[in-house]
Amino acid sequence: MSLSEFDLIRACFTDVGPCRSDVGLGVGDDCALLEVPAGQSLAVSMDTLVAGTHFFSDCDPSAVGYKSLAVGLSDLAAMGADPAWSTLALTLPRVDSDWVREFATGYSRLSKPYGMRLVGGDTTCGPLSVTVQVHGFVPPSAAVRRGGARVGDLVCVSGTLGDAGLALRHLLAGEAVDPSLRRRLEYPTPRVELGRRLRGLATAMIDISDGLAADLGHILDASRVAAEIDLMKLPLSPPVADAVSESSDWGLPLASGDDYELCFCLPAERLMQVKDFAASLGCSVAQIGVIRAGSGLTCRLPGGDIWPLAQVGYDHFLQ
Amino acid sequence: MSLSEFDLIRACFTDVGPCRSDVGLGVGDDCALLEVPAGQSLAVSMDTLVAGTHFFSDCDPSAVGYKSLAVGLSDLAAMGADPAWSTLALTLPRVDSDWVREFATGYSRLSKPYGMRLVGGDTTCGPLSVTVQVHGFVPPSAAVRRGGARVGDLVCVSGTLGDAGLALRHLLAGEAVDPSLRRRLEYPTPRVELGRRLRGLATAMIDISDGLAADLGHILDASRVAAEIDLMKLPLSPPVADAVSESSDWGLPLASGDDYELCFCLPAERLMQVKDFAASLGCSVAQIGVIRAGSGLTCRLPGGDIWPLAQVGYDHFLQ
Repeated sequence: MSLSEFDLIRACFTDVGPCRSDVGLGVGDDCALLEVPAGQSLAVSMDTLVAGTHFFSDCDPSAVGYKSLAVGLSDLAAMGADPAWSTLALTLPRVDSDWVREFATGYSRLSKPYGMRLVGGDTTCGPLSVTVQVHGFVPPSAAVRRGGARVGDLVCVSGTLGDAGLALRHLLAGEAVDPSLRRRLEYPTPRVELGRRLRGLATAMIDISDGLAADLGHILDASRVAAEIDLMKLPLSPPVADAVSESSDWGLPLASGDDYELCFCLPAERLMQVKDFAASLGCSVAQIGVIRAGSGLTCRLPGGDIWPLAQVGYDHFLQ
Repeated sequence: MSLSEFDLIRACFTDVGPCRSDVGLGVGDDCALLEVPAGQSLAVSMDTLVAGTHFFSDCDPSAVGYKSLAVGLSDLAAMGADPAWSTLALTLPRVDSDWVREFATGYSRLSKPYGMRLVGGDTTCGPLSVTVQVHGFVPPSAAVRRGGARVGDLVCVSGTLGDAGLALRHLLAGEAVDPSLRRRLEYPTPRVELGRRLRGLATAMIDISDGLAADLGHILDASRVAAEIDLMKLPLSPPVADAVSESSDWGLPLASGDDYELCFCLPAERLMQVKDFAASLGCSVAQIGVIRAGSGLTCRLPGGDIWPLAQVGYDHFLQ
């Protein structure tokens, strides 16, 4: 095996994403040197995907590359930030240039449309895992945090919930997986432009990575409020609606992870404006509930009963 | 096991390092929000340490925490940057609050003196590994890159070489390890202040993480020059000098990793000034060679012969 660590890095990761004038120095020195525009805060988020925990070891490397950046882009979206740069730490059991090339292809597929340049990172030998840090810009006063939800605000979500969870359920059971669901699991669409347009409109926002109940729960905790959501208003794709209808198990849209949709709170009078521009972005927005005084999350069941829901979500350590 | 991922993160990592006014939002939202001072570039570097590759799985967790930040600080030092913030991705086989607390203690031990605030990260379940990104500031024109070495410059290194390599050799052989060597392996001192003071003086700089030959080789490649170093001038601690003398194997100071000293190039007339302020920082600086026209690294042996040296170094994939 003649390919050294440095050759591997140079070959695949020196030119990922478009060139940017705010990158003084990219891959290849002790540090990258970067310029944050005046008047902008730097927004950063770091996520790790581990083989066997977050993806199957034999998963298409292109999907791993794509998704490792998508989860970070989704965090930027949830702050209303503009994507700028990424750094990548890739740990591989062995040098496998085909695997790395495909990984880089998936990573590039998402870097390009969002104008993100890969500016640095590390490549090491060990059990397969990927850590990505994303960096974006947002004017300090425009960042949408978790703690701003107010009593009376509407609770909204983008897209549909539970698709990735249903795909994963089928995969774990060794069953055939609907290709559209599988795409939602492996190639989720970070709602970057929607998040950006929600600056100044949403009072609180989070991306749904651990399941709606857990992630909305973070908004409620940070904002010190309660919420009541109406299960009949949860936006479900036909396969998820069928699965919920068959099993009466709401865990799929409420507590399965990897949706990477946005959950946000809005004063009621802004809903139509938000639905309009979301539609222009090709993304649906559903109002699913309302913020109340108090604490915790309650759910209105199809029959009209109100059901309290502990924040269960998807916890990597509890699986 | 009742401690959830979120509890674990909150308990140990919400208050690591001193508060800083440039942190608008730290741990606990989708992104951290950070302010880079006007006129400064952001310098970032990301490194991964994997159990079994970079440290022993039963290594003192405090040492793992310390070192995972030290390697990044050493990269900031090598650019002449001021440390500011860190992010941490910690992958653990299981929730082990004692381990995490000790890890955080080691991480804090280095965060505090350098004024670094931990501003975000991720905690996941999987084979033990740590990825840290460090963030620092440097005026764009003052950053010391690898590519500025000029023919006639002196080649210098800080501290002593090969101590960590000798400690590792003893550990791997199951032999007793000199405590001072072990400290150099597990608790290396990043040369942050020295690096900062070398702004405007050093023409090129790198930190020695993969061994002098490999890392000086990166300077030579980036600067398109050659170097001749004098093995008799390599700064060696007594145990390393003894080991080299016994075995006539120069691999220890030339090609063993984890030194985290600085290797830099200087016009000759600046050497005394640099030695003076290095001494005031409690750090020795040795002139070990000179930059020549051409390419590659040659070594003057004790007998006076000149020996060409391929860039071998420590390559994680080739071990």
